[in-house]
Amino acid sequence: MSNIRSAHQNPTPVTVVGLGPMGLALAGTLRDHGHHTTVWNRTAERAASLRARGARLATGVAEAVSASPLTITCLKDYETAHRVLGPAAGALPGRAVVNLNSGTPEEARAAAHWAAERGAAYLDGAIMVPPPLVGQPDAVFLYSGPRAVFDEHREAFATLGDPRYLGPDPGLAVLYNAALLDLMYATVNGLLHATALARSAELPATEFVELVRTWFMPTVIDAAFAEQAVNLGPGHYSGDVGTMEMNRTALDHITRTCLEQGVDAAAPRFMTELAERAIAAGHGEDNYLALFEVFRKAAPAA
Amino acid sequence: MSNIRSAHQNPTPVTVVGLGPMGLALAGTLRDHGHHTTVWNRTAERAASLRARGARLATGVAEAVSASPLTITCLKDYETAHRVLGPAAGALPGRAVVNLNSGTPEEARAAAHWAAERGAAYLDGAIMVPPPLVGQPDAVFLYSGPRAVFDEHREAFATLGDPRYLGPDPGLAVLYNAALLDLMYATVNGLLHATALARSAELPATEFVELVRTWFMPTVIDAAFAEQAVNLGPGHYSGDVGTMEMNRTALDHITRTCLEQGVDAAAPRFMTELAERAIAAGHGEDNYLALFEVFRKAAPAA
Repeated sequence: MSNIRSAHQNPTPVTVVGLGPMGLALAGTLRDHGHHTTVWNRTAERAASLRARGARLATGVAEAVSASPLTITCLKDYETAHRVLGPAAGALPGRAVVNLNSGTPEEARAAAHWAAERGAAYLDGAIMVPPPLVGQPDAVFLYSGPRAVFDEHREAFATLGDPRYLGPDPGLAVLYNAALLDLMYATVNGLLHATALARSAELPATEFVELVRTWFMPTVIDAAFAEQAVNLGPGHYSGDVGTMEMNRTALDHITRTCLEQGVDAAAPRFMTELAERAIAAGHGEDNYLALFEVFRKAAPAA
Repeated sequence: MSNIRSAHQNPTPVTVVGLGPMGLALAGTLRDHGHHTTVWNRTAERAASLRARGARLATGVAEAVSASPLTITCLKDYETAHRVLGPAAGALPGRAVVNLNSGTPEEARAAAHWAAERGAAYLDGAIMVPPPLVGQPDAVFLYSGPRAVFDEHREAFATLGDPRYLGPDPGLAVLYNAALLDLMYATVNGLLHATALARSAELPATEFVELVRTWFMPTVIDAAFAEQAVNLGPGHYSGDVGTMEMNRTALDHITRTCLEQGVDAAAPRFMTELAERAIAAGHGEDNYLALFEVFRKAAPAA
């Protein structure tokens, strides 16, 4: 391999449990970078291409876990991970498990507890790229749990992409994952809705998206994000350059435009309601960022 | 002035009507670039600093409009623009009016009609930057209406920033403005909500926003937008790499994480409802972009 990381002399043997598209990508990348790679999957046929590349297929999950100091699980959810790893309990003490399925922070903390009870070191992780991008230098993976476990296996993690350590709370990786997905859905929804509005005048979607990509996102949105970050923690919401009331009016305006153009208005209406909740909470004369205060506290049950 | 645009030999005289913060920025920028600048405002005191810089204050709106081939109006709304320009009807024939207040496409088209009835050429425009950025080379202004009017006054428009001509329908500039604001609110809301989620684990907001700015927006989101643009017009929504149903599950998951972390869940719940509407409309096995089809058609009245 030409990749400089493959020059590492003694790559850690790694076990990958769960060979969906992501598990296959992880195991294949590790194997191609010289890691002794053992795999296990409920249906053994999934491992055929990996075996051809030199990975070893274990006959059971206990044998798989025993084969390496580090086991990466890539299964459907935490419940599945517990069930699948259960029979390997005898092999867990002194080994490290890195769990990469999605879930909630509480589930990740419970999994760390589960592993600790069985004598295994535990990291929780989240993969922020689709399978084809695994192994690229900018493929971000998030990890949380004991720093020492992360450091010990950093070499293997770096083979898979760009590993980011978030902190000792095992819930952090899935929390960040949820927050980033939340932002992604909000932003993609925003693009789809804004494009629907632009398209309502028969303009090609590509032209609008180009304006968004080449100017709006890198210039306007990035500048806004850069400015806002420092104000969110301490909560400085001076309304000097524009108040929540003014923004509520602008949002009303977008709703009216949607109605006029025959575009679905649920999204701007929802955003108007959020601004109204902020105003009701006393932020009418604050700037728009005060909406952060509405978001960070769960609404009381109706 | 060092700006190369001030080297232009005979800059068009320009009148600016309405001296709020934006009108002041427009008139000041034009004056500083050598345009003979006439201004009018309901309260004359607003013009003091401009007069000191060499702008002329007209004693009435008809005199103001008569002073230049091009009048830029920067007022609260279209109703105000009609009311303020009313007394200048005699001066309008053969002159051009560029209206920069916000409004809806129908209001912009009505204003174009109003101007045409009075013999004036008309462009509608939208300013995409706050007043302090007027005059910067990347300050985007959107214009729509007759191409010839735009071309005739392009020099003056270029003094104010980066002029973009959208097309002959006068409603296009405010429509694009609404669409971009729509995207801005959606994206900023997404950032605020995602940061609230990240912050729920006591991580500093700055750290999360930095990850978003340096990696997530330029890498993940831009790539998504680049890929998606071409599929929105023709409506190709193959679910091969992920279906609406799968995304609905992911959104559920974000909602559960919010509830677990004590963060307001209205935003992910709303996004889940949108995904459910797409599924109900037959897009369950399509990819997430099929949400575009929900947005582009107004929901039937309940």
